[in-house]
Amino acid sequence: MTAVIDRAAGASAQSPASGLVCRNCGATYPLGAQHACFECFGPLEVGYDPQRLAAVTRAQIEAGPYSLWRYAGLLPAGHDPATRVDSGTGMTPLIRADRLADRLGFTAPVWVKDDSANPTHSFKDRVVSVAITAARELGFTRIACASTGNLANSVAAHAARIGMESIVFIPSDLESAKVTQTAVYAGTLVAVEGSYDDVNRLCSELSETDEFESTAFVNVNVRPYYAEGSKTLGFEVAEQLGWRLPEQIVAPMASGSLLTKVHKAFKELITTGLVDPADYRVYGAQSAGCSPIATAFAAGSDTVIPVKPTGIAKSLNIGNPADGPYALDAVRSTGGAMAHVDDDEIRDGIQLLAETCGVFAETAGGVTTAVLKKLAESGQLDTSRETVIYNTGDGLKTLDAVSGRVGPTAVIPPTLKGMRGAGLL
Amino acid sequence: MTAVIDRAAGASAQSPASGLVCRNCGATYPLGAQHACFECFGPLEVGYDPQRLAAVTRAQIEAGPYSLWRYAGLLPAGHDPATRVDSGTGMTPLIRADRLADRLGFTAPVWVKDDSANPTHSFKDRVVSVAITAARELGFTRIACASTGNLANSVAAHAARIGMESIVFIPSDLESAKVTQTAVYAGTLVAVEGSYDDVNRLCSELSETDEFESTAFVNVNVRPYYAEGSKTLGFEVAEQLGWRLPEQIVAPMASGSLLTKVHKAFKELITTGLVDPADYRVYGAQSAGCSPIATAFAAGSDTVIPVKPTGIAKSLNIGNPADGPYALDAVRSTGGAMAHVDDDEIRDGIQLLAETCGVFAETAGGVTTAVLKKLAESGQLDTSRETVIYNTGDGLKTLDAVSGRVGPTAVIPPTLKGMRGAGLL
Repeated sequence: MTAVIDRAAGASAQSPASGLVCRNCGATYPLGAQHACFECFGPLEVGYDPQRLAAVTRAQIEAGPYSLWRYAGLLPAGHDPATRVDSGTGMTPLIRADRLADRLGFTAPVWVKDDSANPTHSFKDRVVSVAITAARELGFTRIACASTGNLANSVAAHAARIGMESIVFIPSDLESAKVTQTAVYAGTLVAVEGSYDDVNRLCSELSETDEFESTAFVNVNVRPYYAEGSKTLGFEVAEQLGWRLPEQIVAPMASGSLLTKVHKAFKELITTGLVDPADYRVYGAQSAGCSPIATAFAAGSDTVIPVKPTGIAKSLNIGNPADGPYALDAVRSTGGAMAHVDDDEIRDGIQLLAETCGVFAETAGGVTTAVLKKLAESGQLDTSRETVIYNTGDGLKTLDAVSGRVGPTAVIPPTLKGMRGAGLL
Repeated sequence: MTAVIDRAAGASAQSPASGLVCRNCGATYPLGAQHACFECFGPLEVGYDPQRLAAVTRAQIEAGPYSLWRYAGLLPAGHDPATRVDSGTGMTPLIRADRLADRLGFTAPVWVKDDSANPTHSFKDRVVSVAITAARELGFTRIACASTGNLANSVAAHAARIGMESIVFIPSDLESAKVTQTAVYAGTLVAVEGSYDDVNRLCSELSETDEFESTAFVNVNVRPYYAEGSKTLGFEVAEQLGWRLPEQIVAPMASGSLLTKVHKAFKELITTGLVDPADYRVYGAQSAGCSPIATAFAAGSDTVIPVKPTGIAKSLNIGNPADGPYALDAVRSTGGAMAHVDDDEIRDGIQLLAETCGVFAETAGGVTTAVLKKLAESGQLDTSRETVIYNTGDGLKTLDAVSGRVGPTAVIPPTLKGMRGAGLL
């Protein structure tokens, strides 16, 4: 049950993944459903055979399907096209945002990578496509997640599509659109009285129980595979720019994983020779209501101190971000910066992106746009360098953020007289 | 400001359009901003030079951009890629819906053409892409429409993207999501106290005024170009099936234009030799609250009697459908049928599509899915024939339709004890 246009598979049927590697101590493990190091409890990520990665060519990728699966040769699952869960995710528009660039005083191009174009309208369809494919390959029979909303939508939708059982955990105070959009797919939906971090803790506990032995929590026990899906946000931008890297990117941070994986993708593109080596700067965006990573950045610290999240950017409200230290490293090592913006700036950001680009973003996209503006104004981001910002979700999911601010210009009776009365004729 | 992946333009820079033709009396006119016949007041549509159409090849199309503009050689605008308004619209997923087919007892494949994947999440991005491109080519400086919601979203978004002035007219009782999604793009939005048909009448009057001389109403004075955009829903299905036609299609009907144009697209594909001749049946779906076309079909009448619309499928609530007689002809001439479904059936249809396909449709998609079920059960639609249904919009735009019906399975404290208390562990 896949999108149909799927040309001859571009990638080899052999996985380039060689094992799981501890990001902390470097210990290695065979590929399996493991996410933490037995030695140091550090997080694991997928390691690759450099030769297999280097064998992937632009031509192979371009001959692949018009979805994230064109990059299967650089991913840890789905090498046999028959095993892929392909919802048509990926290859979302990269929009040249000249009007936004003008408004912010850029002399170089600004681009918006618009992931609201994915099937459930967020970038989470990428990580879920990869995670659910890996989970089936690993023999799991049920799919689960802890979510701030977008992931819930995506897990439930993908499970419905392939007829897999699902159980999704969300904080009980989530935006109603995200609750309804998850529940409509008719999996099990558990609203947890607590924060996302409470939900995440519960899911970690559950993943250790016998009853959940056959359950893949996409962002817990199969997280190494899941997280790799975000690399496609880097691969696609490079391909869409004609196989080259942008000079600056701005990405929102919740767990910090997306930003870290785009950075990883760019490095992999360089080491495999798919793009020429180039300097690029990575910038991270958080909301003032939940800015543990940006706060550590401002303090010059390597330690991310957990916070209790508040504010309207609920999809970014992870107070104890798993990839915070790695995000700090990506930003610092590339010469980028981080910033946070408050709820009014987030609303302004949503409107700025909509008015100049015709892209209606959810609050997370408002955060990213507002941080772009803030960093450009402060000079920390160079307006003479080509910049890509990531819009990760859809405005229809967080309507309340702007519904009190925008509305009809006029309400009139259906007559020319009515138009004249409103000064419109 | 376009999506970037745009390979060498596949279509000739020469337009295949030869003029405007009265659908009633056959009178012809030069290409321009005219929508009604001077002789008989019948509606005009775009006529083509058959030789230019026949010159378009599959290879040309496949070498074009991955958007509706790959079919420029079969459209009346955008032949010079530099003139196109390309929002990344089109080439939406065609999803093989095996679980839906099973549920409804089909022995042949069922497919869902999911146009909620377009940038503003409805098929209207297609007609607007073509209309706004034509409007610029014709020298208009402002874009406008009468809308039941989705068109409003799309016109305002496209105008924002290219920096064109816009003025959008909607009934004042529209779903709040569609109002907010239109207003956020910051064009002029006029809420009219009346039905869609009242709004449409007002726009017709306005298009005759001096003040609106430079304004293209996409579905009034440039309607012939606009309507052609819907043909791409037929072209894409044929290409995605491997350049062949499906045996049955089910399409929702508001004005009746979409269904009529998909039929036209299939005929053009046959006459140009892009697909082999094949019999296919066209089925039309309406809601019980607004079923003037389906009612005429049931009565065996050619006359569509206007109604005052009611019911939750607001995007289909056109009581005086301009293309009703043509939709009747398309359905009757192909041996298809029409049906209408009530609000509860529409809600069931939304849930059925979500549960089996992972596609969350707006009420119009619920209408189409419910009519598929109804026609299959009554035997009017053949469950042994391959069938494509069109989902034209997104569930996030009409959340109220199902938000009272679906919700969390359980609300629990963040503990294993909470899970046990809810019977989930």
